[in-house]
Amino acid sequence: MNQFREVCARISRNPIFINTVIVLIIFNAILVGLETYISVDSQLYQWIYFGDRLILWLFTLEIAIRIVGSFSVKDFLKDPWNAFDFAIVALGHILVGSHYVIILRVIRVLRVLRAVSIIPSLRKMVNALILTIPSMGTILLLLGIFFYIYAVVGTMLYSDMAPEYFGTLHNSLLTLFQLLTLDSWASGVMAPVIEQEPTSWWYFISFIIIGAFVIINLFVGVIVNNVEEASREETPSPTDIKLAEVQKELAEIKALLKSKT
Amino acid sequence: MNQFREVCARISRNPIFINTVIVLIIFNAILVGLETYISVDSQLYQWIYFGDRLILWLFTLEIAIRIVGSFSVKDFLKDPWNAFDFAIVALGHILVGSHYVIILRVIRVLRVLRAVSIIPSLRKMVNALILTIPSMGTILLLLGIFFYIYAVVGTMLYSDMAPEYFGTLHNSLLTLFQLLTLDSWASGVMAPVIEQEPTSWWYFISFIIIGAFVIINLFVGVIVNNVEEASREETPSPTDIKLAEVQKELAEIKALLKSKT
Amino acid sequence: MNQFREVCARISRNPIFINTVIVLIIFNAILVGLETYISVDSQLYQWIYFGDRLILWLFTLEIAIRIVGSFSVKDFLKDPWNAFDFAIVALGHILVGSHYVIILRVIRVLRVLRAVSIIPSLRKMVNALILTIPSMGTILLLLGIFFYIYAVVGTMLYSDMAPEYFGTLHNSLLTLFQLLTLDSWASGVMAPVIEQEPTSWWYFISFIIIGAFVIINLFVGVIVNNVEEASREETPSPTDIKLAEVQKELAEIKALLKSKT
Amino acid sequence: MNQFREVCARISRNPIFINTVIVLIIFNAILVGLETYISVDSQLYQWIYFGDRLILWLFTLEIAIRIVGSFSVKDFLKDPWNAFDFAIVALGHILVGSHYVIILRVIRVLRVLRAVSIIPSLRKMVNALILTIPSMGTILLLLGIFFYIYAVVGTMLYSDMAPEYFGTLHNSLLTLFQLLTLDSWASGVMAPVIEQEPTSWWYFISFIIIGAFVIINLFVGVIVNNVEEASREETPSPTDIKLAEVQKELAEIKALLKSKT
Repeated sequence: MNQFREVCARISRNPIFINTVIVLIIFNAILVGLETYISVDSQLYQWIYFGDRLILWLFTLEIAIRIVGSFSVKDFLKDPWNAFDFAIVALGHILVGSHYVIILRVIRVLRVLRAVSIIPSLRKMVNALILTIPSMGTILLLLGIFFYIYAVVGTMLYSDMAPEYFGTLHNSLLTLFQLLTLDSWASGVMAPVIEQEPTSWWYFISFIIIGAFVIINLFVGVIVNNVEEASREETPSPTDIKLAEVQKELAEIKALLKSKT
Repeated sequence: MNQFREVCARISRNPIFINTVIVLIIFNAILVGLETYISVDSQLYQWIYFGDRLILWLFTLEIAIRIVGSFSVKDFLKDPWNAFDFAIVALGHILVGSHYVIILRVIRVLRVLRAVSIIPSLRKMVNALILTIPSMGTILLLLGIFFYIYAVVGTMLYSDMAPEYFGTLHNSLLTLFQLLTLDSWASGVMAPVIEQEPTSWWYFISFIIIGAFVIINLFVGVIVNNVEEASREETPSPTDIKLAEVQKELAEIKALLKSKT
Repeated sequence: MNQFREVCARISRNPIFINTVIVLIIFNAILVGLETYISVDSQLYQWIYFGDRLILWLFTLEIAIRIVGSFSVKDFLKDPWNAFDFAIVALGHILVGSHYVIILRVIRVLRVLRAVSIIPSLRKMVNALILTIPSMGTILLLLGIFFYIYAVVGTMLYSDMAPEYFGTLHNSLLTLFQLLTLDSWASGVMAPVIEQEPTSWWYFISFIIIGAFVIINLFVGVIVNNVEEASREETPSPTDIKLAEVQKELAEIKALLKSKT
Repeated sequence: MNQFREVCARISRNPIFINTVIVLIIFNAILVGLETYISVDSQLYQWIYFGDRLILWLFTLEIAIRIVGSFSVKDFLKDPWNAFDFAIVALGHILVGSHYVIILRVIRVLRVLRAVSIIPSLRKMVNALILTIPSMGTILLLLGIFFYIYAVVGTMLYSDMAPEYFGTLHNSLLTLFQLLTLDSWASGVMAPVIEQEPTSWWYFISFIIIGAFVIINLFVGVIVNNVEEASREETPSPTDIKLAEVQKELAEIKALLKSKT
């Protein structure tokens, strides 16, 4: 058994194995794309269905080899990317006979995301992106409070004037997100409100200025964080190399002095 | 009396006390959100009104404890965040019987902002954001002059062609703010003007180029400020650590030399 | 005469003199703003006209004092800001009886810009902004070539399909500027073209990607320039201070060694 | 023959030669611009046609001189800019009698791009811009996967609700690009979808947040890269100059010590 595990582990680290999986993912992506062009009743759909089943079983085989190759199932699932791979494939089997065709198709599309878990550079980058989220925690909380207050005030004041934008709290939150992206904020959202209540410009202008201000600072925070991390990971600077030479020189002088005593 | 003050001070620093206040603020936020979904006449509104009164009195109790816990009322109000907390709660009592329902509701909404004053990390961040405003003083003044000149010229030239955008000085200022955010500037604002006066493109293009240019520099200014502050607060760099070692080494060599004399 | 010049020079450097001019500029700004609200025939317009004449003569007096206070007229006009002040006031006198009311009014508005020449911090900032323009020369030339090529191609291909956007070369350039600011590029400009020529998406997508790419680099260039300049002007870093101490220490050691020989 | 080559090489490096070519390119740009204003049947078109032929032959002469001036044709074409110059001129001759008038005109327009290959500062900048593309490889791949998944899901879910935006996979990709640029994303694209399926806001909001997040990081990556490169190319910092002095001093001390032994 132990020898079989060894073989599986060696296979799962083999570049040919990884490249085969990448090819399968690309093939899966093409199938999923083709599917949007083809009606469910057509002849071709049968072939797509068959290809899809084939890919699912090949993925199952791949996951099986990787599980056997690792020490235990628990060990394998510890890495969240492995757990994601496992869940995507398992769900494909569990829901196979279900009537929720849309969910099944979404799972098939999400298999394309496996490219991120299998290609090391993508995996590293997504991990890095996810790691920058916690550092934005406070500013996102602040943005949340700011959004909530403006949404409640907006609903209170303008729910009758512009029900399509400020009808309910949920609508207002959506509208404020639109304001933050500056999409048609003046031409679309503010115009009907300001026509009925000419003094309401303060609501929109203040939201955009404060929002943009917070966003800029969020942005700057991310930049500073990234720059600092990048510079920390850097190879030693020329200044540091020279300093090391100075230290070496000093040690030699000290030795000379001591030898003379 | 002094002993009572001591107890109050200890209570106001207790994490349980602070967490209770945070829970109250969240509860207040939920009430204020629910209120937007419910008509004033409904049965449920009575409950919301009751919850609101309860929160107001609990907040009053909290502020009272914190005031007693500090040396004096004057001392307490010195911190602008405390003054804000006090004002928000006091206004709730003063305006309780008033007919300005909207103002009362806005005050209730603003109580959500108390989250900023009670959560230390938010407080620190908002303080930092406010501190960056003065450094933009000159550029905001420049932006103001630039806005004013374009608004007067715009009103002079286009008040008859596009009264909804350039009818009055006030309208023009609002339109120029819209131009600065690039919302429908060409499709909405410039189109009707340029139809009647084909040479008026210089007004819009120059405003956007100069405006964007000033904004970019404002932005860069903020970034540079932030980066510099961030780097100043940093722990000593590896270069500085090495330099300190060099200095220590030199001191030892000097001592060796002197001992030989 | 020399003594009179001395008095004028001292007056023109006096803060009270400068503050008086600032007050006059603010007064001029208010007049110019009021003018947009008032019809030329009204009674009030007479007062505004009178105020305007008064300000013009006070400005003339101010410029006269400053010219006398400097060594010569030529010396005075060497500073482009002084030349600007002189031109604005001189044009007010020259065109006084002219029929080009609009030009006269524009000159009156431009007097507000004198605030930049009289307030030192604004003057310094505008000088700094102007100094960053040459460093963008090459990239602006590149942007110009890129714009011109796309404008000619756009006019060639789409002048019949969307004459309001690509009718003439001049129209196309304006449309491309709109595309660069991303205002209604898809909903407004691309929609009518793509309806008649479905493959024309490459024109819009490529323009936006290349344009944004060049703009980002322009932006980065400005940031890098600003950051570098800011860091150059900075006070010596802690690293440099420590290094100076090391150099001092070394000099002492050398002296010790030499004294022993 | 060798002597003739020498003469050609010297001519092709002569500033007058280069400036003449720049003038020709500007002349070509003007012709190409004029062409958009003039109908093919008009008298003036004959002159433009003649000017175009003249420029083509002058360019041919220029390329010939530069080819003769270099060691071999192969050597000349090694530089991609020379290959571009050669191709543009060669295509002008090959397609001269063809019926694809549009292609001929596009080639004539592309000749304006020769300005980039002939002006050294532009050439250097475009080379620098092109060099930053590979460093974005991974993030562009990630953006591609992200786009593809959202496009397939969008087509699956909304192809019936909003066929003009999500009718086919190709349409969806175009719509998603529009969403990324934030053009009318809420007012144009989301409005008709959300009317029929109120819960579909998650699709648009998540796409914009993730997209903006990835874009910001792409942006930050480019900035960090550029700043680092810029600082690497910089002249030695004052810190490094001082360090060099320290090293010199140490060497002298060592020599002193050794001489005493």
